[in-house]
Order: sequence, then structure tokens, then C-alpha cells
Amino acid sequence: MNSYASFAPRHIGPGTADTRAMLAALGVPSLETLISQAVPNKIRLERPLNLPAAATEAEALAELAEKMSANTVLKSFVGLGYHGTHTPPVILRNMFENPAWYTAYTPYQAEISQGRLEMLFNFQTFVTELTGLPVASASLLDEATALAEAIGIAFRQHREKRTRIAFANAPHPQTRDVAKTRAEPLGIEIDGDTVDENTAALVVAWPDTYGVYGDQKAKIAEAKAVGALVIFVADPLALTVTDTPASLGADIAVGSMQRFGVPMGFGGPHAAYCAVTDALTRLMPGRLVGQSVDTKGRPGYRLALQTREQHIRRDKATSNICTAQALLANMATAYAIWHGPEGLQAIANQTHGLASRLAAALKAKGLNVLGDQRFDTVTIELKGQAKAKAKEAQKDGRLLRMVNDDLIGITFDETSTEADLQAIAALFGATAPSKSERTLPGKPRDAKSFLTQPAFHENRSETDMMRFLRKLADKDLALDRTMIPLGSCTMKLNAAAEMIPVSWPTVANLHPFAPKAHSTGYKAMCDDLERWLAEITGFHAVSLQPNAGSQGEYAGLLAIRRYHEARGETNRNICLIPSSAHGTNPASAAMAGMEVVVVKCAASGDIDMDDMRAKVEQHSANLAALMITYPSTHGVFEETIKDICQLVHDNGGQVYLDGANLNALVGLARPGDIGGDVCHMNLHKTFCIPHGGGGPGVGPIGVAKHLAPYLPGHIDHGSTHPVSAAPYGSASILPITWMYIRMMGGDGLKQATEHAILAANYVANRLKEHYPVLYKGRGDRVAHECILDTRVLKDSAGITVDDIAKRLIDYGFHAPTMSWPVAGTLMVEPTESEPKHELDRFCDAMIGIANEAAKVASGEWSKTDNPLHNAPHTATETLVAEWTHPYSRLEAAYPASDPDTAAKYWPPVSRIDNVAGDRNLVCSCPPLSEYSDAAE
Amino acid sequence: MNSYASFAPRHIGPGTADTRAMLAALGVPSLETLISQAVPNKIRLERPLNLPAAATEAEALAELAEKMSANTVLKSFVGLGYHGTHTPPVILRNMFENPAWYTAYTPYQAEISQGRLEMLFNFQTFVTELTGLPVASASLLDEATALAEAIGIAFRQHREKRTRIAFANAPHPQTRDVAKTRAEPLGIEIDGDTVDENTAALVVAWPDTYGVYGDQKAKIAEAKAVGALVIFVADPLALTVTDTPASLGADIAVGSMQRFGVPMGFGGPHAAYCAVTDALTRLMPGRLVGQSVDTKGRPGYRLALQTREQHIRRDKATSNICTAQALLANMATAYAIWHGPEGLQAIANQTHGLASRLAAALKAKGLNVLGDQRFDTVTIELKGQAKAKAKEAQKDGRLLRMVNDDLIGITFDETSTEADLQAIAALFGATAPSKSERTLPGKPRDAKSFLTQPAFHENRSETDMMRFLRKLADKDLALDRTMIPLGSCTMKLNAAAEMIPVSWPTVANLHPFAPKAHSTGYKAMCDDLERWLAEITGFHAVSLQPNAGSQGEYAGLLAIRRYHEARGETNRNICLIPSSAHGTNPASAAMAGMEVVVVKCAASGDIDMDDMRAKVEQHSANLAALMITYPSTHGVFEETIKDICQLVHDNGGQVYLDGANLNALVGLARPGDIGGDVCHMNLHKTFCIPHGGGGPGVGPIGVAKHLAPYLPGHIDHGSTHPVSAAPYGSASILPITWMYIRMMGGDGLKQATEHAILAANYVANRLKEHYPVLYKGRGDRVAHECILDTRVLKDSAGITVDDIAKRLIDYGFHAPTMSWPVAGTLMVEPTESEPKHELDRFCDAMIGIANEAAKVASGEWSKTDNPLHNAPHTATETLVAEWTHPYSRLEAAYPASDPDTAAKYWPPVSRIDNVAGDRNLVCSCPPLSEYSDAAE
Repeated sequence: MNSYASFAPRHIGPGTADTRAMLAALGVPSLETLISQAVPNKIRLERPLNLPAAATEAEALAELAEKMSANTVLKSFVGLGYHGTHTPPVILRNMFENPAWYTAYTPYQAEISQGRLEMLFNFQTFVTELTGLPVASASLLDEATALAEAIGIAFRQHREKRTRIAFANAPHPQTRDVAKTRAEPLGIEIDGDTVDENTAALVVAWPDTYGVYGDQKAKIAEAKAVGALVIFVADPLALTVTDTPASLGADIAVGSMQRFGVPMGFGGPHAAYCAVTDALTRLMPGRLVGQSVDTKGRPGYRLALQTREQHIRRDKATSNICTAQALLANMATAYAIWHGPEGLQAIANQTHGLASRLAAALKAKGLNVLGDQRFDTVTIELKGQAKAKAKEAQKDGRLLRMVNDDLIGITFDETSTEADLQAIAALFGATAPSKSERTLPGKPRDAKSFLTQPAFHENRSETDMMRFLRKLADKDLALDRTMIPLGSCTMKLNAAAEMIPVSWPTVANLHPFAPKAHSTGYKAMCDDLERWLAEITGFHAVSLQPNAGSQGEYAGLLAIRRYHEARGETNRNICLIPSSAHGTNPASAAMAGMEVVVVKCAASGDIDMDDMRAKVEQHSANLAALMITYPSTHGVFEETIKDICQLVHDNGGQVYLDGANLNALVGLARPGDIGGDVCHMNLHKTFCIPHGGGGPGVGPIGVAKHLAPYLPGHIDHGSTHPVSAAPYGSASILPITWMYIRMMGGDGLKQATEHAILAANYVANRLKEHYPVLYKGRGDRVAHECILDTRVLKDSAGITVDDIAKRLIDYGFHAPTMSWPVAGTLMVEPTESEPKHELDRFCDAMIGIANEAAKVASGEWSKTDNPLHNAPHTATETLVAEWTHPYSRLEAAYPASDPDTAAKYWPPVSRIDNVAGDRNLVCSCPPLSEYSDAAE
Repeated sequence: MNSYASFAPRHIGPGTADTRAMLAALGVPSLETLISQAVPNKIRLERPLNLPAAATEAEALAELAEKMSANTVLKSFVGLGYHGTHTPPVILRNMFENPAWYTAYTPYQAEISQGRLEMLFNFQTFVTELTGLPVASASLLDEATALAEAIGIAFRQHREKRTRIAFANAPHPQTRDVAKTRAEPLGIEIDGDTVDENTAALVVAWPDTYGVYGDQKAKIAEAKAVGALVIFVADPLALTVTDTPASLGADIAVGSMQRFGVPMGFGGPHAAYCAVTDALTRLMPGRLVGQSVDTKGRPGYRLALQTREQHIRRDKATSNICTAQALLANMATAYAIWHGPEGLQAIANQTHGLASRLAAALKAKGLNVLGDQRFDTVTIELKGQAKAKAKEAQKDGRLLRMVNDDLIGITFDETSTEADLQAIAALFGATAPSKSERTLPGKPRDAKSFLTQPAFHENRSETDMMRFLRKLADKDLALDRTMIPLGSCTMKLNAAAEMIPVSWPTVANLHPFAPKAHSTGYKAMCDDLERWLAEITGFHAVSLQPNAGSQGEYAGLLAIRRYHEARGETNRNICLIPSSAHGTNPASAAMAGMEVVVVKCAASGDIDMDDMRAKVEQHSANLAALMITYPSTHGVFEETIKDICQLVHDNGGQVYLDGANLNALVGLARPGDIGGDVCHMNLHKTFCIPHGGGGPGVGPIGVAKHLAPYLPGHIDHGSTHPVSAAPYGSASILPITWMYIRMMGGDGLKQATEHAILAANYVANRLKEHYPVLYKGRGDRVAHECILDTRVLKDSAGITVDDIAKRLIDYGFHAPTMSWPVAGTLMVEPTESEPKHELDRFCDAMIGIANEAAKVASGEWSKTDNPLHNAPHTATETLVAEWTHPYSRLEAAYPASDPDTAAKYWPPVSRIDNVAGDRNLVCSCPPLSEYSDAAE
């Protein structure tokens, strides 16, 4: 390999000369010197990572293409919640493969996120209209975890006093398995269909895993009678042509939106939906997009009720969801916008027609077909013949579902054709009738009864759709235009070479429950990845199943719980968590059935060792685990980490290392060597999976040898406690991480870490005169991020951290993390991918803001009328006829000295009112009929 | 196929309700009524087109993928000017697959084209530094036509008096063949290497087709001595590591830039370069990007010396080039920016090292290797064994060049590996030495001696490159943001499904001279396309070879010329051309050795039939052809077209129908039926190939049966007069048109035409009260475009057509075609793809401008200070502290009533000074050294 082709220098922002300049600014002669100052010697990995030598982009792409070509991609009729679908090319190219959409961050900063917020708001509207329930969230991780979350809602609604969940019929097995995993630590029983006073909820699969609806009226009435909630797990495509769950009595509805244009991708990522009644709104987990107004009264979208996630209610929480599947939810919404209600119904009717015709044909042939009412699935009894029949179909390139030796399932979808129907009917010696009869429950739905809002009708030509997607993307700031210096969130480059394989048919079109022999390519890729991640983290084994960091946390704690159980120490249920921890930590602990005990932090930001010892001793007998983030959430390498781990081990506890800050460790130190027993890795942080505007995330866990038997995974793979629906979770985006590691090699990964630490120290050093840098570690160095204390501007000029964040928009930046982990501060993680000139542009902006604050402090500008207070400035306000502000229009819009009109980002709204939004919660568009009703 | 999946309603902008509203506005009950009013009955096609029924996007993609999978894509060592190359993924995704880059139009409107102009300017800089020649154009079509153009320069430089071209050595055969085709009608002889007083130029292949340089000093000196120009055909990658052509005496250098990151694509499209000495600047054909200043003195790019192309000098022209390969030139430039001089040299040295080591190994083995100095190619004498050896290599997946039975060629490139070298050496029983010796002529080039400008050094990290490409794209307005209502240029949707196949490896990676058995997929696709286009146009046969509309015109006239020759009527050399014709028509005629006679047009815009008859009779004995555009360049269906054709035929002439306006005919009428003998089709207009910011174009021709023997094509395919280098011209983008026709079907294509006519009449009708519509046809209808007479505003208020065009930028539009075919007018072709609301937005803007002009006329606004005169308004000017204009800032920037900040386009410069730019021609950046020299 020639050096010009090596990937590491492409991934790393600063070139050689820039690196030299940055080191010089810090007064150190080399990267190694800096690292030796910042990283404690006793944790350093003294050898190179044992990974394959770095490949070039072209080599890695060729190698992965070859590997994935071992997959056998047949046309799927498996169903089980995963369906063939056509991703409209206009959406594929302009959204799924467009960095403006996929490199965006979670829309916490509303003003620079109106585009993706609008799309997610449309998603919520879409879901409420499909389900008939008034409130929907902006997506959950998959159908299985969505059901678990729904069960959680029911549990909380009954003040955690009712501990039984009844099933009216059979959901998909993986959905039931995950619900079981999640219910058990909370003491919730999942068994049978009996409803009684202890039943928190009745779950209705609509239809069941065999495709059968059945009459659930009596059972639902029974549940209502005892005050149990009713949860529907419903296929959303079927809902376009039949009654809504709400009209049937559902309090909650969940399901997968995958078949709306999102490829199966061997199991994910896909968006799940969750809708609830008004009464349950505030119990609903995950993200909710709401509508509010900006300072000029213009409507603006925002994340509503944010306290429930980023600032999750710690140990009181019973959900730890802190991401969504934004990109996939947005794709599903774009698909609905593209097809409109008539188009979706046409797809549903075509699908249903094929299924009902096949059922009729098989019945006419005398075969036993399960049930009378179906949507897309025909399940056939074939005593002992299922396997042979499935094999026969495979020879023709069709994959059927072999339920067991006696049952075979055939599920149609958007991609199924008349030829498929004829061939499958012929397989059973039958001939499909030419006409289909409707065999769905309820009445056909009027296409005018849902998706009546303009967005679902205005974008049916590709020209319109392309411009609509560009217009929304242009409202937002993503990595393709600017640095996103978010602390902890590691917004680094998502390289094109890493993203390309996700679109390959061998990656995108495989069903997650295809026979193992069909997924050997995926298996080989996952095996590589597990081995590489184990080497990088110093663990014995890795599970790729958790499809978000929060799920990784949960899975890790569950492994610890089950380890103690296996040793007969069921009493061990105390989980120590430092006060500086991510909010998800205590939430995960609670979900894993543990009791949280908080350990104090010292003024330095480090863990208070005295309190630590005291708490460990106090809870020694019942100590289950310590959860600790390393380097700490304050961005510091604590010197005592090994001692802490030792202390916990000595007292019978296990150490859970939160991998949120792994970007500061890779190649320099390994969580497993430091003393961790479990660690999750955010592949969407350190390992280059893009944030997708708020998901998907991927959170594999690594464990030491003694915990390996308790790793999560799919039941067919030998695990008894899956944490997500698909065997490998969000399998189709794992190639992104595979490509990254393959192209960087051990040396490149280490360089990336060194540069991440260099960048953070460079920024801290440039800004320290203007904003005190909180929590430095040894050698006066920070790790890979730094906390800037902006309270100095509050004290001197009344300028809040919010003012600074919003003013950064005028400078063309996404704000750093605000007020976390310390109120009134900004946490900055520049990452290794940002070029020096972009770091400097950011530092210049922060210094510019400090200078602006000085003018307020000196009285030159009023405290209530200055560019910080009024930020961000929209074009409309800046061009207003009468300019009354004490600063100029150019200062308002172009605070950096050199106006470059092409690069200027104009926010579409001014500051959004968060309080008003939460007070008047509007989370979906009302149907047009309500407007006209109101007008009458 | 279900209707929800059909493509035609996605391609066509207006939906059913919009269509109804548009028809109502015109007072017609149906599309058919409108068409019967607009299109003469006697030319109507009375049956449906005989094309395959429309396929859905998914079906067409699957069918084409299957078809193209029949290609055998081996690793190529064929050379011949086509090389394997790695398209950097960041460029692939963010430029090649990004509609913001590929849907842009030619940058005639400088203010909204600064992004692509900057990139093309960098291309010119890159070429001047590679060649050492001071002036380079913004690309030509391919190496072969570039040589033909260079010969044209030499011919003109010698006032067309010297008629011989000498070849110092052998260029690639296809390059020589095309030069021959082009030279013959001009009376230029191409033969031998003798230089004399009649020699216009000496051509030096650098290196020759066998990869050998040879010592050309004496021959060059000889040429100089007799005053002949010296033309180098030089490999640009080799130029990064050896002497420049200028230093060796070249006056002109041409070559292909394909190997800089542009896939081989079975022959194209690729950019060719052309660089000349200062003295030859104004003889250089094609586009030249220059630098000028805007009204505030800011530097701005523009197309310089535009008279040479769009407004080409009619019958005086000896080049008809009116497009470039902008997208491909921009990709090559992005590749150079990505790698920088060091990277390019590393690639060149790696490539050279492999070749020189193979040569050394084979020589050591006693084989006869041609030449001593080589760059990338080793040609070996193997008496009678070449075929067997080539077959053997193919078994290993390597494609070598079988020059003839005795010669075999091996060319290395960026994708060649050490393993390739070893395997190829082993094929000859040799072992490659571990070290390579430089076997290049001249001195190694200092990496600091070229590409010293910042752009070539600032974008080496992917984060930088991604943002650089987005920033440039954001400076421009393309179809992904707005309607581009250019008359004649047919800026319609380029659908994602049409574009996707271009990136497939089976399409992108095939060498154009791979054995025929390897390209059966391409052959099948091309056969379909030829058949379909023949059916659509009513011709007997179609050639896909011409790689631009201008080349199609030329090829068509050449076929006519050769037809007359074959009949012994060599005297027939008069070409009649109406005064309203495209400028390329007379230029093409001149190039085909014909004499142009202009036929007058009547005031109605139609051809003056009296003058027509007079001219035909006058030239009856020598009449070669009539070139006529239908519908006319005035956007009118002339009733007399059939009579005109008959008249020409009766007098022994042939009718060349210019297909520029085919978008008004497809499915309604056929050029072949009307009386045309030849017609070219602009696939980049009517058939959805994107304009790429100024190329590629594709211009196949269809001919009647008697002309079929004279179709152009590759010599191996039986034609004796190729017009472009590759067998199928720009083969890799033909799938775009294949997909379009396959998805539309005959009915969809007809609907598209009807909607194109509807849209033009709708716009004409909405605007006729404000701007007289010139040249209406029967039923008071226009065809697919309309000419708006803006001179009314000039008369009333002194507002020029330029003012209107620039003010449209403030409204967020690309201007229509200006002052063509009538000075002081705007020609608008809305196309069928624009939704009704975008047509209305455009009409509203035009009406808004008329209202603004009325304020000037009434004296409310000054004639020298009004928003039309001052347009376009940049953000910087609009935000200036002191606003002195009589209109408001909001009126300046948001003239449409509803300011939507997200959709607002801000031009990066104000009006560019065209005169100053042409007077002080700056067409490339000087090297940085010149700046420092000047400073000293």
C-alpha cells in the first residue's frame, strides 16, 4: 500500500504541519509527549493492537464486497415482522445516502434542526392516524423493545403494583423473547392469556405471528373490565386498510415501520412506532417532537418533554431509551409522503390480495390454512412436510418461513408479484383464483380519512420530492457543513467508503431469520468485528446485539445480574454510580432490577475516594456492580481507576465500564486491562456509525471470560436473553465500523485517539483565558473533551449558556453540549476528524462571543438588547426596515470578520420557546377536517 | 404493475388536479384538445409507439442489472488511453452522485454558478501546470476529438492554407481515426512523418500507443524550422513526473483526464484537456473559464469569450463544440485536489515502477520489449503468440492488449498491484526485480513545481473535502432547488432511478476495447436503445457514438456528404440553414465541408417559403442538405414542414432535422415521418441525461435506410468514419436514457410531451399580459417553449433583459435563455417535470418584475437605482449599515411576498462584469511563486 492511499490521514483532520503547530501551541515536542502527560502510565497498553494491517479504501471495499457476496439473498416470504420493500430511489439517493441527512445530530438545538424535526413530526402524525391514538413518539428501536417499553408504560401506569402481562395471542417469537428479558428483572410475569386484577396489560398481536387476526373483542372487554391496559402490536401497512387499534380499544400500539421503504438489512436498523392515549403521554419513553413558537411567534418544532431522556430521571426511570431511529423514521415518513394514503392502500391491497388468493387456492386444494382473517400471511399445516416444501421453494429462489416441522408460513409484501403467487400456489399443486376476496377484519378504510395534511399530498412528483428533501436538509446544520463540537457524543467523520456498503444488495436485502447457511457473509463480518472489538477493549467476548448504547448498558448489567444469580448471590443488587454519570446509567440499573447508590465526586471532578470506600464497605455484602465512565464524564483520566476496580472486585462486585468515552482510549488503554468486567461501545460515537439526526445507535458489549455465558443474543444462537429483536441487532450498519477498523488498522486507530486528545487540549488551551477549563487531569491536561465554564459571562454580563449556544448559530456552529455534566458550562469534544482551521474557527467564535459579552458587561450594549440575547438572528429580522439594535446588521448575521455568503447558515426560526412548547403539547398535525370543523 | 408504482406520474410534475387547473386556464377541456390545437394534424403519429410496456423503477433496475451482468469485467491492462482508477468515495458520493452537482446547467449565468466555475478554473490551472502551456480550456469531449480540434487550431492559425498534418509517431488508433474523419472534409491530409512547408502541425504522441517515448527533438526542431505548430498528445499522469510538453516545444497539448478518478465506463464520458500558447488563445475551441470582478470589485468567475460557443460564429466557425465535460472535468480536478501534487506523483511513480520492472524482467528473460523509455506500458514482440498469451492472462482475470498477432501490450495504472506484476511476469516465465529504474525521458519533476495553489493543499482530510464540495455546490442553483426554465435546453428531471446504474461496477469498470464477448451486456442495452430511439424518431437506424449534440450534427451531415459522394454527386455541397437556426448548425456544416446558404424567416418566425423556394431553385444542382429545427427554434410547429422537406427532396437534397426540440415531438410525431433523412437526438435534453453543470452531452443520430451505410461508429464495428474515440461514445450514461424509456413506455413518453406543451402554453398564457409572446403557431398555441418579449420593459423603463435575468436570481430562479433566438427576449421551456406550483412561482416572479419595472417607468424608482438595475443582491450589500436605495432591504432580497429563509438562495457575488473579464483574460491561477516574485 502506498501512503497516498492510506485512509488514516483522510480520517484525521489535521495534516502534518497542522499537527506540529498544535503541538507547539501546547508546548510539547510530540504527540507521544502529550499522551504521556495526559494518560496515566499505569493504564497504558504497551503493545500495538493486534489487528489486520490497514487497508486502503479500495482494498477494504473489495474485501468486504467479497465477504458479503457469500450471503445468499433469496426473495423473502418469511415475514416475522421483516418484509421486502422498495426504497424509492429518490429517497435512497437524497436522504439515505446524503450526508446532510445522515451526519446530523439529535435535534436538541431546535433552531438548527427544523428540517429533521418537521419530518419526525410528520412521522408522529402518520403514526397517530394509522393507530387512531392521539400521541406518538418519534420512534423506538424495534418492535420487540417497543413492546417491552409498552409493558413498562402499563407497569408504571399501575404504579408498579400489577405484575402480570397477558397475551391474547402469539406475537412474533423474537418480540415475546425480548419482552421476557426485559420483564423479568422488574418482577413482571409474562404468561398465558388469563386476565385478572393483577394484570397490567393485555397484549394483542394484530395479526398474530401466523398472520391470523381472530376475534379479540371478548378478551379486550375482559381486560378493560379489570382495568388492564390494552396493547396492540400491529402491522402498520395493514392499518391503512382496516380499523384502527384505538377503535378496537387499544391504549397503546406498537410495531415496526420497516416495511415503509427501509431495507430488511438482516434485522435493522428500523424504526418502531409507539402511540398512546392522552392519559399515557407523560409515561411514554423516548423522544417526542412538539410544536412551539419562536420569539417572533412563528411556529417552530422542538423536542418536547426532554427531561425524559437526555436528562433522564436517573434511578426513578424505568426506561433508559435515549436515542431513536430518526433516520429510519424519516425514511418511513418520506415513503408515506411519496406514496400518500392512496398509494399506501394500493400497496396494502396488492399485498393482501396475493395472500387471500393464495389462502383461497390452498383451501380449495383441501389444505389446512390457519385462520380466516389475514392480511399478508398464509400459514399452512403440512404434517412433517414443512422442511421439504421450504427447500423446494428455495430452489426457485424463494424463502418461506418454516415455523416447525408441521407449519409453513408465506408472507407477501410490496415486492411480491403475480408470478410469485402462481409459483407458490403451484408448489402446493394449487392454482390461485383470479379474484381476491377481502379477508380482513373491520371495514375498508377511506383513503381520505388519514394523512390528510398537505405534506402527504404535495410531493408526488420526483422533482417535488427531491426539492422537499433538500429544503428540509438545508434548514439544518450537519457535519457536512460544520464541526459539531458535542461533548461525549463524538461527532466524527462518517466516511463515504464506510457508508457505501450499507446500500449493497448483499447487505440490505437479507432477512434476519434467513437460514444460517444464507448469512455466512454476515457471520464472517460479525466474527471479524467481535474479534477486533474484543482486542480493542481487552475483553474475552463481544455481543453485537444491543442496538443502542442504552441497550448495551442494560445488557451488560443483566449479564452481571445473571452472573451473581448463577453463583447463588441473588442478594447482590446494589449498583454504585458516581454522581457525574450519564443519566442512562441509573436508569439501566433500575431496569436491570438493581438499586442505585450514588458515589460523590470531589471538587476536582474525580470520584471521591473516601466516599467510594465507604459506600463499597457499607454495601459489601450486596454489592452487584459499579458503573463508571472512563475517562470520566468530566473528560479526565482519573489516576485511581485501577484502584477503584480492585476495590469493587475485592468486595464481590463487578465493574461496568461505560464506553461513552472510548474515543480517548482506543489503542492507548483497554477497559478490560484497567479492571472492567463489562463495557459497552457506542459504535455511533467512537466507531463512525453516523448519528442519523438522532439514531440509529449501536451499542455492543464486551465482557470478561467469566461473564461470557451471560452475553445477550438471539435464542437460536444459544442465548436465553435477547435484548433486541434481530440476531445481530442493527446488522446492516455494522459494515460501517468494519470498514473503519479495517482501513485504520491498529496504528491508525491509535493515531486517531492521540489526535482526539490533541484537539481537545488545543481547544482548551486556546480558550482557557476566556473560559475557565473545569476538571483537568494529570499534567494539567484534559482527555478527549473539555468543559468550558461559561458562568464567567453570566457573572460579568448576564449572558447565559443558552445565549452562547444560540449565538454560535450566527457564527455558523452547532452548540457544544450544554449544562452537562455541570450546569452553566459547555462541553466540547472536537474529535480527531476536525481540521485545525475548523478548530480555530470555533475558538475564534467562542472568543468573539466573550468579547461581545465584554461589551455588555461594560454597558456598551444593553443587557436585554445585544446580539447574544437576541441570537440566533434570522434573515427576516436582520433585514427589517427599522434597525433598532445597538449593534449592526452585519454584526448580527456575520459576527466572524469575513462574510462568506455561500457558507453562511441562516436559521429558519429565532429562539424557540421551550416552556410554552411543553405546556401546550402539540405532537402531531390534526387532520384537515378538524380545521374545517373549527371554522364552521 | 400497480398504478402507485408507475413512473410516468413521478416524472411528470403536475398531478391530475393541477393538470385540470392548467387546462382550465387555457380554456381547453383536455390535453388532447390542446395538442390538436398546437400540433399540425398532418404530422401526427396516428398509432402508439411500439415500445415495451412501462416498467416500474424496481422492475427496470432489476432488468438492467440483469442485462449488464452479462458483461465480463476483468482487470484491465489494455491501456489505449483508458485506465483503471479509484474514484475517491468522498468524490463519488458528494459530487458524482449528488444532484446539486449533476443537475446544474452550463454556467452561463455567472452569479449563480460560482461553485462549478471555481472548480473548472482549478481544472484549467491544473492543465496549464501539467503541460507548461499558459492557457487551457475547461475541457473537450475526448482525446480523439481534442486532437481533431488541435488540428483545427493549427489549420486556422495558418489561415487554412497549410493542409498537411505530420505524425512523429503513432497515437492511439482511435485517436488517429477520429482525426482522419474530421480532417478529410476540410481538405486536410493526414499522412506520414514528413514535415514540409505545407505542414500545419506535427503531432507527437507522448508516449506513443505502444508506450514508447522515443527521441522527438530533431523532428520537433524540423517542424519549428518550417513554421509548423507542434501538438502533443500526452498522458497527463505521466506529466506529473516528467518534463512539460511546453518545455519540449509544444504549442498545443491535448489528452484524456480519465485516469484522474473517472471510471472507464466502456469509453466515456471523460474530460479531455487542451492547452495552448498565448498566441493561440482565441483560436481555442470550447469553453474557457475566466476571472472578472463584480459590481463591488469582488473577484468572480465567468465563461470567457462566450461568442466562441453558445453564440458560435456560424458559418465562419471551424469548430462546432458547444458543450464540455464539466462534471468529469470537475471530478478529475477534485481528484487532483484530493491527492495533491505529492499524491499524484506517488500514483505516477507506483504505476511507472511496475511498468519499468516488468520491462526489465522481460528483457532479462530475452524477450523483445519495444523502446527504452516508457511510462506505464510494456509492449512485447511475441511472434504469433500474442493471442495465446492474452487468453492465458484472461484466465487469471487480467485483460491485456492484443495489438496484433505478434504484439501484446500491458499497461499499468493506479489499481495495479505488486501481485499483478508478479503474475504477469510469471506469465512470461520472468521474475520482476525488486527495484525499479526510472525509464522516463527528462528530469523528475519537483512536487513543489506545480499545483502550488491553496485549493490543491487544503482539502486532504475527508471532512475538509466533503465540506469543500458542499460549499461549492451551495454557491450554485441547480435543479435540486429550482426550476431552470431554459429555452431549448430542456432542463427536466434526472431521476435517481435513472442515475443509479451509472455507478454499477458492471457499467463503470469495463474497458471500451475489451473483447466483444466481454461487453454483451452493453451491446444488448445499446441494441435496445438504438431500436427504441429509431422507433421514437421514425428512422431506420441509429448510431449512439456521437458524444454531444454538436457531434451528432456533424456526423449527420457527414453521412449526407458521403451519401452524395457515393452517388457521384460530389458537387452537392450547399447546405441551406434558416436564419433562426442554432449557431452550431452552420458551424457543423462548415466542418462537414459544406457551404452555408441562409434562408430567411418571416415575421411570424416561420421560414419564408418564398425565399426557401428561391434558394432551393437557385442551388438545385448543388443542393446537399437543408438543416432545420422542428418545432422551430422559435418554439412553433410550422405547418409547412412536410412541404419544405418535399421541396428539398425534389431538388436532390437531404433533410437534416435538428433534434434540439424533440421534447415537443416524442409520441406525437416523428422526424422520420415528417420527411427528415437524418436527425440527432440530445439525450441530455429530451432523454434525461443530466447537464452536469456543462456536460456531458450525448447526441446519437437516426437516419433513413439509404443513409444507414454512412452512420458513424468504431472502425472495428464496420464504420470507416468514427466521430468519437470510443465505440459507443459516452457509453456509461446511456443507461440513463435506457431507464427513462423503459420506465415511461410509449404512453408515458407521449404524456410527457403533452405535458411539456401544456406547461409552455400555461406559462405563455399567464404571462402574455405582461410580456408579449412572440411567434405563436396554429390555434394561437406555442409548442414546448415560448419567447417572452421583454423589450416592453426596455421601452417603458429602460430595464434590460439582463436586468430581468439577474433580478430572477433574487427571486430564487435561474434565468431563461437570454436574447436567443431574438435579442431582448427570454425563451422559456418549462418542461413536463416542473410542478404547477413551481410554474406559478416563476410566473409570479416574472409578473413581480413587470410590476417593479412599472415603478421605474412611473418614476417612483430611479432608472439607475432600482432593484432590477442593482440585481442580484448579495447578503453583504443587503445588510450594509446605510441603506440608500428607494426600495427596502426585504424587497431587495425577498421580492416574493412570503420570505422563506430556508429556501432563499443568496448569490455569492453581485453582477459580474463580462467586458472587463474578456479584456483582461485570466484563465488560471498563477503559481504561488509568481505572487512572491511580484512581492519582492
